[in-house]
Amino acid sequence: MPSAVAPIKHSPLVNGLNSAALLEIIDAVKADPEIAKFNFHLTNKWLGGEKTRSIVKEFTGALQTHRADAKGFVLDSGEPPVLLGEDTAPNSGEWLLHTLVSCLTTTIVYHAAARGIAIESIESQIEGDIDLRGFLGVAADVRKGYSALRVRMRVRTKAEAATIENLASYSPMLEVVSASVPVSLKIETY
Amino acid sequence: MPSAVAPIKHSPLVNGLNSAALLEIIDAVKADPEIAKFNFHLTNKWLGGEKTRSIVKEFTGALQTHRADAKGFVLDSGEPPVLLGEDTAPNSGEWLLHTLVSCLTTTIVYHAAARGIAIESIESQIEGDIDLRGFLGVAADVRKGYSALRVRMRVRTKAEAATIENLASYSPMLEVVSASVPVSLKIETY
Repeated sequence: MPSAVAPIKHSPLVNGLNSAALLEIIDAVKADPEIAKFNFHLTNKWLGGEKTRSIVKEFTGALQTHRADAKGFVLDSGEPPVLLGEDTAPNSGEWLLHTLVSCLTTTIVYHAAARGIAIESIESQIEGDIDLRGFLGVAADVRKGYSALRVRMRVRTKAEAATIENLASYSPMLEVVSASVPVSLKIETY
Repeated sequence: MPSAVAPIKHSPLVNGLNSAALLEIIDAVKADPEIAKFNFHLTNKWLGGEKTRSIVKEFTGALQTHRADAKGFVLDSGEPPVLLGEDTAPNSGEWLLHTLVSCLTTTIVYHAAARGIAIESIESQIEGDIDLRGFLGVAADVRKGYSALRVRMRVRTKAEAATIENLASYSPMLEVVSASVPVSLKIETY
């Protein structure tokens, strides 16, 4: 079993990731920043009423196109009956929560792998407050999006909570969201 | 066929939505702002390597708890091989694109319904540029999240593009994202 402080070169698989390949990526983008440029894209179609569907296939990055021949992933959105829908899929507010928490988790795991920090498990809760008067346009002083987001993460690792918090701070989607919405991030390790 | 300018009261189903119920909701939150307060939440678990899974069930809003007895939706995230994953699900950057475009589409449809504007179809493309040197922590001056997002929407409707753009401006997730990322939104009607 790899130690939590083992040097990377002695632990190629850390947290289920090929940490040697991760370090190679880091070296490659230092040598040629063009490799780090990615473009993600997808198409979306309104399906009537509250329903929309996205198809995500290829993307570009590391100087190549990827997934060009893939069937792609189908991403649905809906609304619950209280918001006039049939509850066939999460709504975009819920998708944002998934976006942020999955990004935080993945960021922690990747940055831990790069540092040789073993993570045993991560379990999280995320919630957001939203006042629909903003969306409905009935109160100009009420914001349309979330007014607050709160995340609680329980991380099984030998590392300190402060260390994991520092890893989480590299999360791309945390940066996107936290500029406009206060995000409370509480991390407990055990 | 309802006219695009028919008064709401004469067109209870607009764009597949119960527009009369939508106007009732607007009146209700004007009378009691507490009805407009929603809280969405979900749990997420790391599945090893690049994979995470969220389960989204109940939420609160309109002074009630909803979906408490539902099985819930399962939301997966992954990474492609170039980012050391097995490509079993979209990554969080792709989920953000779905979040934003589905919110824009739904917002247009709901606000159009409230105004009696018929929408026949909406098809969209969304893309985002991201320089992974920010995420990887190898360049302090490079942002971690998207540096730019571009959305193109083709909307089949008798309304003007400027009218649809105004409806889209109520999008909660556009507000969340556009505070930190420049969002180019191009809407064409036909």
